[in-house]
Order: sequence, then C-alpha cells, then structure tokens
Amino acid sequence: MFKTRITEKLGVRYPIIQGSMLYLSLAELVSEVSNAGALGMLNSVCLTSKKALRDEIRKTKNLTANPFAVQLVYLPASREIPNDQFIETIIEERVKIIETVGPVQPAVISRLHQAGITCLHKATTVRHALAAERAGADAVTVEGLECAGHAGMSDVTSLILIQRTIQEVKIPVIAAGGFVDGKGLVAALAMGAEAILMGTRFFLTRECPIHPNIKEFCVNAREIDTAVCLRSLRDPVRYLRTDVVDKILEMEASGADLKQLLTVVSGENMRQAVEQGDLTKGPISVGQCVGLIHDIPTVKELIDRIMNEAEEARRRLNIIQ
Amino acid sequence: MFKTRITEKLGVRYPIIQGSMLYLSLAELVSEVSNAGALGMLNSVCLTSKKALRDEIRKTKNLTANPFAVQLVYLPASREIPNDQFIETIIEERVKIIETVGPVQPAVISRLHQAGITCLHKATTVRHALAAERAGADAVTVEGLECAGHAGMSDVTSLILIQRTIQEVKIPVIAAGGFVDGKGLVAALAMGAEAILMGTRFFLTRECPIHPNIKEFCVNAREIDTAVCLRSLRDPVRYLRTDVVDKILEMEASGADLKQLLTVVSGENMRQAVEQGDLTKGPISVGQCVGLIHDIPTVKELIDRIMNEAEEARRRLNIIQ
Repeated sequence: MFKTRITEKLGVRYPIIQGSMLYLSLAELVSEVSNAGALGMLNSVCLTSKKALRDEIRKTKNLTANPFAVQLVYLPASREIPNDQFIETIIEERVKIIETVGPVQPAVISRLHQAGITCLHKATTVRHALAAERAGADAVTVEGLECAGHAGMSDVTSLILIQRTIQEVKIPVIAAGGFVDGKGLVAALAMGAEAILMGTRFFLTRECPIHPNIKEFCVNAREIDTAVCLRSLRDPVRYLRTDVVDKILEMEASGADLKQLLTVVSGENMRQAVEQGDLTKGPISVGQCVGLIHDIPTVKELIDRIMNEAEEARRRLNIIQ
Repeated sequence: MFKTRITEKLGVRYPIIQGSMLYLSLAELVSEVSNAGALGMLNSVCLTSKKALRDEIRKTKNLTANPFAVQLVYLPASREIPNDQFIETIIEERVKIIETVGPVQPAVISRLHQAGITCLHKATTVRHALAAERAGADAVTVEGLECAGHAGMSDVTSLILIQRTIQEVKIPVIAAGGFVDGKGLVAALAMGAEAILMGTRFFLTRECPIHPNIKEFCVNAREIDTAVCLRSLRDPVRYLRTDVVDKILEMEASGADLKQLLTVVSGENMRQAVEQGDLTKGPISVGQCVGLIHDIPTVKELIDRIMNEAEEARRRLNIIQ
C-alpha cells in the first residue's frame, strides 16, 4: 500500500499522481487514474472558459467517486489564462486538490485553503520549493532537467533536485521527472519522497486520448530521442525529437524571436499534432523516461503493476543481508 | 550489510566504490576507503610512468590489506597515457580489480581476465554499457549528465541512464552521478543497481589530498554552482563554476580551438589549482551533488554513516504500510 503523508492528505490509496498534460488530462484519463487508486489531475489551461472547466470537472465526477486534482498554470502563455474564473469554478464544484505551476501564488493558496482545498505546487528549483512552502503549499512536486515540458533554467537533474529539496523543506516532497515503475517508486520513497508524479508514463496508456500513431512512435523512442528547446526564451521545454523540433532548434540558433517561434510551437500546433497523430504539425512533450517505456497498458493495469513491482522491490531490499 | 553481486565479486564489505579523481585518488585516500569496507580506486592517469604506478600500488598495499582498484583512462588526452605499461604493472603487482573509462577495450579486458583480474567499465550511455557487457566486463558503472568530469554527449541524466541500463544488461550495474548518502544508496539498490560509485562525496573527506580552501569552497557550493564545458570539443566536462570556468565558456562561445582551450583546461592547470588551493589556476571537477554535501568527515565516518543511513532508510520503507 505504501501509505505516506501524501496518500493521507490526498485521500488516495497509492502514492502515485498523474501529471497534467496539455489537451490530454481530461475527464476520461483523469477518472481512470483516480478509479485505479492514484490521483488523476485535470489540465485546465487547454480549457478556454469557466464553463468548459466546470463541464470537465462534472464529467470527471460522474466517472469517479475518488479524489482528483485540477492544475492551474501560471507560466507565461501566448493568451491569457482565466485562472481567477477557474478558481471560482474549483471552489463551486468542491474540487478537493489543486496543483499550481509557475511562480508561487501565495494569494491563490490562501484563498483555496479557506475553501478547504489542498494545494500542491510544482517546482524545478529548490528556491521555488522553499517559496511554495513559505506560501503555505501542502506539498511540493519537484522535477529535474529530464522531465517533459517546462524544465526550468537551472539544468539540475531530478536525482539531485529531489534529494536536495528533501534536505530543505518540511512539507512532503513528490518526486517527478524520470519515474515509470515500481522500482522507481521505491527509489523515490527511499530518498524520502512521499509520492511520485508521472506524466510520460500515463501519456503511454490506452486511455490517454492521443492519436495511436504518436503512442506507437513514443513506445519505440529512446532516452536520447528528446531535445530541449526554447532556452532562448528562458523557458526551456523538453519535446520528443522530431523534424519540427529540429526546426525550432535551428530557428533559435539563427536568432528567431518569440513571435517567429510561436508560429511553430503554438498550443494550436500542439493540439493538431496530438489530435491528428501528425508529428509534422507541432511538438509533443515527453521526458527522457520515454526510453524506459515499452508498452501501452490500461491505466488500471499500469497502476496495479507498479504497486506489485514496488512490493517486490521492497521485498528484494529486505533479502539483501 | 547490503550484500550484492558486486560486494561478492569485489570482495568488499559494502556496496560503495570510490570514483577515481585526477591527482587525488592516490594511496592515502584509496587505502582509507578500502580499510573502511568500501572499494578504493587509484587514479593512474596522473602517474607518468610505470614506476610511479608501481610505487603508488605498493604504497596502497602497505596501507591496506583489503582490495582496491586501479582506473585505466582511455579518453582522449593531451599526452599519451602509458596504459600498456600500466597493465603490466597491474598484473605484476597482483591488483585484483581495474576500471576502464572511455571507449570499451575488449583486448584489455581479455588480457586482464587471463590474469584473474575483475574488470569494471564506466560508461555514460546504454550503448557503451552494452558494449562493455559484450566485451566481457564484469560490471558496468553508469553516470549521467549531473556527474563530475566527463559527462558524455547524450545529456541523459543518472536517474534515466541507471534505470535504462538495468533494463538492458545482465551484468551488475553500479550507479553513479548523484549519490552521497545512505538514502541514495537504498534508492540505487531499489532501482536494481548493485552498488554506488561516488566521486564528489569522497572529494569532500578529510583524507582527500586537496587543499582545504577548495574543500571549504565546495562545502558551500550549491547544486546550481557547476557548469558543463568543452561541448565544442565533443567531450563535455562538468566543473565547479568559477571565473576560470566562465572564461572557458566564453572562449568556446567565441570559437576557441582545442589548442587555445588547453591553455586554460590543461592537466597542469588543474594540478596547480588542486595543490595550491587556488581556483584561479584551473578548473576543478565536481558533480551537481556538491550541493547535497555539507560537511567534511573522515572516510571512515562517511562510510559508517552511509551504512547506518541505509539501514535506517530500509527500516523506514518497511514501516510504510
């Protein structure tokens, strides 16, 4: 079972959290994760209105009686994100858990705490993890350079960042950026983390609503088949290495500005790639752990397997005399 | 105790190996590590003759009855390394264990095996780990992008590389690049590694023969205080970030060639920095884990503490229900 402060705080059976994925972490996937005993997390940034978020939350509630979270994105975006309206909806719909990402938002945490909502924060530096703790976050997720999507500017890897954050903060630490199985879960717990958060591993499940072509492509990708783009914008993002991504890197090398880069990396391009299964349309975020993944199980198969592997890994550690 | 195939093969008490460090892993440090129940490893590349290596091996044997290893470096170097002569000495002096680093050397492994010597290989990619296995290496050490010194070109982090290598090879895997304590040791074992190799952690021990000024500086360094240089030479090396290192990065950015770079990063410059404790003389290799280290214990205090922490981490995992 592996009960920790995180499983207790979140009211979930297993110390596993599904990372929010743009266009993908919607009711179907999120409810399956929560039904299987982990924590599902809705992506809000792809929803364009208060009504769209409310509909997605209600749809999720219809599919699971278990807790799930909603992610609120405070990263720079090409269009304004209606987070204040999303917060109203989250409170009205009695969502129990949220995750913020981007600069720490003390006022948001404070407001959500008043409504009895548990607040997680995702960070890529120790400094931001400490800021989240000071702002009252109930737990902090840290992910290093190998993670999918926004990797932060410090180039510190998950192994270092997780251990370092655990040295510094008192709130529970959720380890992310490189975990895909039960051995990894036990490794994270051994370091002192109290749960793992996985994006890429849930990306490659049957229920993830991405085109099967892309799943197939990713299952065959290696750990060396990703690349970090957009360093020139001081917001490095890790993508699956495709021709589109090589083009972005070339554009950056020749000094392209934000506006030029957005013609290739816009959310709309990513949406088209995701929906049409066409990797020429836009970039796809995956972590280096894509190389560790070799199958496309159902969410329930995955979570059950991880917990069996974790018990086995613990047993193996005990046999070592 | 944590017995694994590695402790059995190497004849050591604990699954801990001291990584070879230029100018530093000499008899004094190596014998202390072996005496404390881990595996010490002599650096040979800083020794300029067969006689110098023989003297160092004999000095080590006088200081410890326990096994120790000798590292053989097959990386590109500014001067020729007399590895063939070193191998003769290793055989003559009945050293029990060697580690090769750089391109896999099937003929060397074969020759040393005939002499009954256990051969470890250190790699920074899965491809090289597999090549080492095919060449008959008895175990493979893998270290990712966060490691000190030569980090390889693939930018894959330790967490990913360790898990991925364990998926692929049958020989024991030694985890390196980010481990400093007993929680990390148990995390590595949980992933399926059979020992950890630590460089930076042993760098910051009382017995490490580096100037105290540098130890003091490193104990205060953060995980963000390192930088990777020499990408332009296709041999990236991680150093403590100092003015010298910023200068190297600037030189690379403005297109400096090997000859120009060697005026700053030569072994002689590093030796002067190490001996004089003067960080303006040359660069110093440390890993990102420098940020995890906050004290300068003796080697024996360190190893005893790590094993106590490991037992504690295992106990804690068992308490989690």
